[in-house]
Amino acid sequence: MNRKQEALKRLTAIGKRVVDDIKNNRFPALEIPSRSVDNIIYDTKLRQYILGDEKIVRNAKNIKHLRAFTQLLWIAYFSKELLKNNKTSTLRDIYYSAQAYHVDFEDQDESDEMITELESIIKMPREDFNIYPEERSAIFGDLTIEYTVPGYEGKTLVLTTHPDGVMIGPALTTANFIKTSADKVIVIEKGALFTRFIEEKVYEKYKSILIATAGQAPRSTRYLIRRLNRELGLPVYIFTDADPWGMHIAMVIISGSANAAHVTDLVTPDAKWAGVWASDIKYYKLPSDPLTEIDIKRLYELKEDPRYNEEIWKREIDEFLRIKKKSEQEAFARYGLTYIVDKYLPTKLKEMEK
Amino acid sequence: MNRKQEALKRLTAIGKRVVDDIKNNRFPALEIPSRSVDNIIYDTKLRQYILGDEKIVRNAKNIKHLRAFTQLLWIAYFSKELLKNNKTSTLRDIYYSAQAYHVDFEDQDESDEMITELESIIKMPREDFNIYPEERSAIFGDLTIEYTVPGYEGKTLVLTTHPDGVMIGPALTTANFIKTSADKVIVIEKGALFTRFIEEKVYEKYKSILIATAGQAPRSTRYLIRRLNRELGLPVYIFTDADPWGMHIAMVIISGSANAAHVTDLVTPDAKWAGVWASDIKYYKLPSDPLTEIDIKRLYELKEDPRYNEEIWKREIDEFLRIKKKSEQEAFARYGLTYIVDKYLPTKLKEMEK
Repeated sequence: MNRKQEALKRLTAIGKRVVDDIKNNRFPALEIPSRSVDNIIYDTKLRQYILGDEKIVRNAKNIKHLRAFTQLLWIAYFSKELLKNNKTSTLRDIYYSAQAYHVDFEDQDESDEMITELESIIKMPREDFNIYPEERSAIFGDLTIEYTVPGYEGKTLVLTTHPDGVMIGPALTTANFIKTSADKVIVIEKGALFTRFIEEKVYEKYKSILIATAGQAPRSTRYLIRRLNRELGLPVYIFTDADPWGMHIAMVIISGSANAAHVTDLVTPDAKWAGVWASDIKYYKLPSDPLTEIDIKRLYELKEDPRYNEEIWKREIDEFLRIKKKSEQEAFARYGLTYIVDKYLPTKLKEMEK
Repeated sequence: MNRKQEALKRLTAIGKRVVDDIKNNRFPALEIPSRSVDNIIYDTKLRQYILGDEKIVRNAKNIKHLRAFTQLLWIAYFSKELLKNNKTSTLRDIYYSAQAYHVDFEDQDESDEMITELESIIKMPREDFNIYPEERSAIFGDLTIEYTVPGYEGKTLVLTTHPDGVMIGPALTTANFIKTSADKVIVIEKGALFTRFIEEKVYEKYKSILIATAGQAPRSTRYLIRRLNRELGLPVYIFTDADPWGMHIAMVIISGSANAAHVTDLVTPDAKWAGVWASDIKYYKLPSDPLTEIDIKRLYELKEDPRYNEEIWKREIDEFLRIKKKSEQEAFARYGLTYIVDKYLPTKLKEMEK
């Protein structure tokens, strides 16, 4: 059973529970994992935030629960329709679609919240019931995929066909992986560097699948990275700018976010932040800018964050605070446009593979 | 001669002029079109901003000119190297690369300014000398292209191969158009709607090439839209959110920006803003939000802008100010996810084709 079928099954189960309650003259009720702060726990073994055992019960008997209960059921219904009709949607679409059904949401925050609740009940990310993010990132590399979306079922394609890269949207996220000659995945924060890596044939020279996140990785990209790691057994190396925000782009791919503690399919705990490190700024004498007050405040926040408990993160946070500087990936261009590919990348990969 | 060869020729001409001056014991000097406000003129025939005839002369004899003169020559040299070596770059890369040559730029603004100056001298956009924007948008449709970038020379491909769309980067921007069954180009502001249009087979039903700008269209995307319009003779219809910012996304594709008055290859004056109009909000009873103060201020600015002189723009600006509302493209979801494709789009296209 594939994930979409599994999601369909779980959504149907919610409806069945409600109908059964009604048939048996009971007020329908649903158990929902609590997402309050005290139920969000950092799991050191899974290396990500998860929800604890606290539940809340939403009962149609309670007039105060009725509005949220209806909203939740409608979201579950609408998601089931999306799956059945092979349509995808976005958080924003859902908010507007509710109006067609006269289901009232105060604003998009309220409908987003209900979608999150549905994720926590069926324990699957919303991408599995066809609600995708608006943002897109890109992929390139010797990976043969087979599409499963309508009109493209069974079509296979190699992801080196377009030298500018292919968008990561609903179709790619749900494609089957057929084969690859790559032995690693390289994730890059900046689109321009992704283009440079393609031009310099990093995918051949270092047998890699390249992914550009274009800033914080959208959820479907994190989902795809996890799949490449799990299904193909490929190690994942992440390259970002050398600043607290770049660090955190890597961390969210590795350990997820507290916001998504209720879903566990978006993280890649074995992925590695390969650079650009604070210590690289000094070692490579990179052009740099002084850290701003906001950068420094952010670093102190990260110091308190349980995800940043491993040695490398602690060391680099301290180094940032010591040198009070940050650099961008493009800063390597001071040694020529290809230095980052010819020198920095192989050095780092060797270090990582140790 | 293709555009890259033409750019190479013009860059070489700059160097030759300087060398000739030196050989003849003259201080080298260059004439540069003035980009001061009073030399930026709205050309009603070309329907875009252009530069007037004012020139400034930069002369190596003048010690105050020497720094900028050197910077400009270095940018021209570096661009020539990019072209010769088939490498692409970005504004930011250029700033950092200068350090490898000990050419001093105070900050990236200063190097950006010199690149703009070079564009104005050789009268070609920087994409022609391989300096591309960081941002990427996407394309999908029945268009067969032939790549010209190294490693892909002569490879042809149809842009329907990836149902999530293909990135518009240096390779696609410079590809040759071989054939298409499309009879129009539809440009869409939002990535999610682009996905919806692909899922609903808009490219087949309305024989169209689809482009997602993802906000303000990056320059290389505007360049590509112009090429589709000029080389294939395809009309271009632009769909944005119904607010002053969406309007302006359309306008910049159509008439360019004052900032780029010195290059004329980035505009598509015959492209049409097809919606979502202010008048559509009322006609389709779309869910809407009140205009903010900033929105309203922006509308009064647009009223003064010569690009907004045509009837449709004036009418829609006035309508926005009258109803004081704005809507998003996704607002059509209130009539079901496919309403925008089944009803709104064909109505609009019919209206446009009149």
